[in-house]
Amino acid sequence: MATINRQILLVSRPQAEPSVDNFKLVETPLPELADGQVLVRNHYLSLDPYMRGRMSEAKSYAQPQPLNEVMIGGTVGEVVASKNAHFAVGDKVVGMGGWQEFQLVDGNQRGVLQKVDTTHVPLSAYLGAVGMPGVTGWYGLTQIIAPKAGETVVVSAASGAVGGAVGQLAKARGCRAVGLAGGQEKCDYVVKELGFDACIDYKQHKDLKSLSMALKEACPNGIDGYFENVGGMILDAVMMRANAFSRIAMCGMIAGYNGEPIPMQYPQLILVNRMKVEGFIVSEHMELWPQALKELGTAVATGKLKYRETVSQGIASAPEAFLGLLKGKNFGKQLVKLV
Amino acid sequence: MATINRQILLVSRPQAEPSVDNFKLVETPLPELADGQVLVRNHYLSLDPYMRGRMSEAKSYAQPQPLNEVMIGGTVGEVVASKNAHFAVGDKVVGMGGWQEFQLVDGNQRGVLQKVDTTHVPLSAYLGAVGMPGVTGWYGLTQIIAPKAGETVVVSAASGAVGGAVGQLAKARGCRAVGLAGGQEKCDYVVKELGFDACIDYKQHKDLKSLSMALKEACPNGIDGYFENVGGMILDAVMMRANAFSRIAMCGMIAGYNGEPIPMQYPQLILVNRMKVEGFIVSEHMELWPQALKELGTAVATGKLKYRETVSQGIASAPEAFLGLLKGKNFGKQLVKLV
Repeated sequence: MATINRQILLVSRPQAEPSVDNFKLVETPLPELADGQVLVRNHYLSLDPYMRGRMSEAKSYAQPQPLNEVMIGGTVGEVVASKNAHFAVGDKVVGMGGWQEFQLVDGNQRGVLQKVDTTHVPLSAYLGAVGMPGVTGWYGLTQIIAPKAGETVVVSAASGAVGGAVGQLAKARGCRAVGLAGGQEKCDYVVKELGFDACIDYKQHKDLKSLSMALKEACPNGIDGYFENVGGMILDAVMMRANAFSRIAMCGMIAGYNGEPIPMQYPQLILVNRMKVEGFIVSEHMELWPQALKELGTAVATGKLKYRETVSQGIASAPEAFLGLLKGKNFGKQLVKLV
Repeated sequence: MATINRQILLVSRPQAEPSVDNFKLVETPLPELADGQVLVRNHYLSLDPYMRGRMSEAKSYAQPQPLNEVMIGGTVGEVVASKNAHFAVGDKVVGMGGWQEFQLVDGNQRGVLQKVDTTHVPLSAYLGAVGMPGVTGWYGLTQIIAPKAGETVVVSAASGAVGGAVGQLAKARGCRAVGLAGGQEKCDYVVKELGFDACIDYKQHKDLKSLSMALKEACPNGIDGYFENVGGMILDAVMMRANAFSRIAMCGMIAGYNGEPIPMQYPQLILVNRMKVEGFIVSEHMELWPQALKELGTAVATGKLKYRETVSQGIASAPEAFLGLLKGKNFGKQLVKLV
């Protein structure tokens, strides 16, 4: 039985770009279990763009990550000790375990741990396609874009955990799915493995006109729905090709996460095209998670929803892997393997 | 019986700011009535910001106004001759008569003329509070902003035909109504006559910070709904004070009508605040006009919905009056009196 928990704390806030110095690895003794508590050995830690927001103190939808505490993060793992009748040793669970090898939680606190079935779905998928990123894609697509068959749906960061789900779910609804990704390898994957109709390597387009022309070619009938993970020039280019009554689901704007200005150049297009632009946070719509997870779980189990993972090894690798994620160095869902 | 119709044609398109030279007054003989036709003497011509868009060839929601034809525009008037059983001499009607003294129409064409009752509502009001501008305000407020009692609703161009309706309808729904208008006189009118809770003279605020601070003061509980007629810096300032789950109804962006850049500086606020930003064109929602007109007509007839008119005299005055409207020189609904 392990007695030491290795954890990563946020110890300072980035001024612009974050660095590994914002984080610190510490070793903490594991306490004895009290009644009702459950000890989970985290197998995988999920790294997600939203964490960049939590590192800053700027006003946002969530409280900032407190300094000198374990970084927030989704985890999947296995119960290794339990003084709670609802959880048995060996149970596989998903939760918000944070950047650490073990989590000790009150198993009676509602929703803190969810048991998951790994018969047909791999444990790590509960952090990706059948977890928060998958539900995020599902929500923005089905609740905001709400596409009809035959419409064209575009998504940025298309090879990522969220973007990949958006495009595949759109295809399943009879839409044309067009991705934007960084680099030919990712674009090839998006089209050949995920089944998108087209994918644009945004790195090949240095200005708005060029990117807008590429979108015109990839979307001959214009754009009816756009799932936004990036912001900046990509958003402007999409808006220039947006159809009347098109919908934009605003999920992330990673282009501005370090404080870069990312103005929307032509907001008048919202009026001219009678567009709807709507921001959302998936954790505010928990009532829809069961419906979303059912579709996503079935699609993964039957091989209809594909995904890729980039896995870094060991808790100490998390800061470096996270910085890479913010620069698009990962390919698909970024995970840290802890056992 | 008059035999000459004086008309104003669009004869050239503006490069940036429009001028009176874009228009030309012509005299045209009135033809004999054919069977089914109705001759209307237009009493008032409505001047509206949307006409600026029609003067340009740029892609928009409507076809450009063709050159060398009578300018498009809403009118109210009286039937002076009729070869149509549905219309009698003396009937008061509203229609899209254009910038001219008479209109000769096929009375059988559905919706081309609507008879109106001037017992309790003045004829000119059917071009303003009980017409397209009133319905525009009603639609954006009730269908997009959809405010709850106690919420704060902000509207730009608050002393205008649309803005005045938005604020008064918001007040009737138990909201705090805050206007933005140009100059102290308009602001006084908005608060003292229309009953808004506050009105900000945007001309007193030359930068974003100053305007944003003024909004903070006028909206101590933040902003839940914004009805946008203007765009540019005002939109940015409102977004900086927007609450979580706030809604923006995009109706007009007069700040950019001459091609000025009007970027939205902080689109990430849409995400951070989970906002909904939606553009609309009221003529695409005809199914709701009867409901809107019923509320608006009753409110005007009972003195609960107030408005002001700026009336220029004679068809020849229309171009100058229109250019003044675009610069905010009017006070309330801009009309041209034709008889």
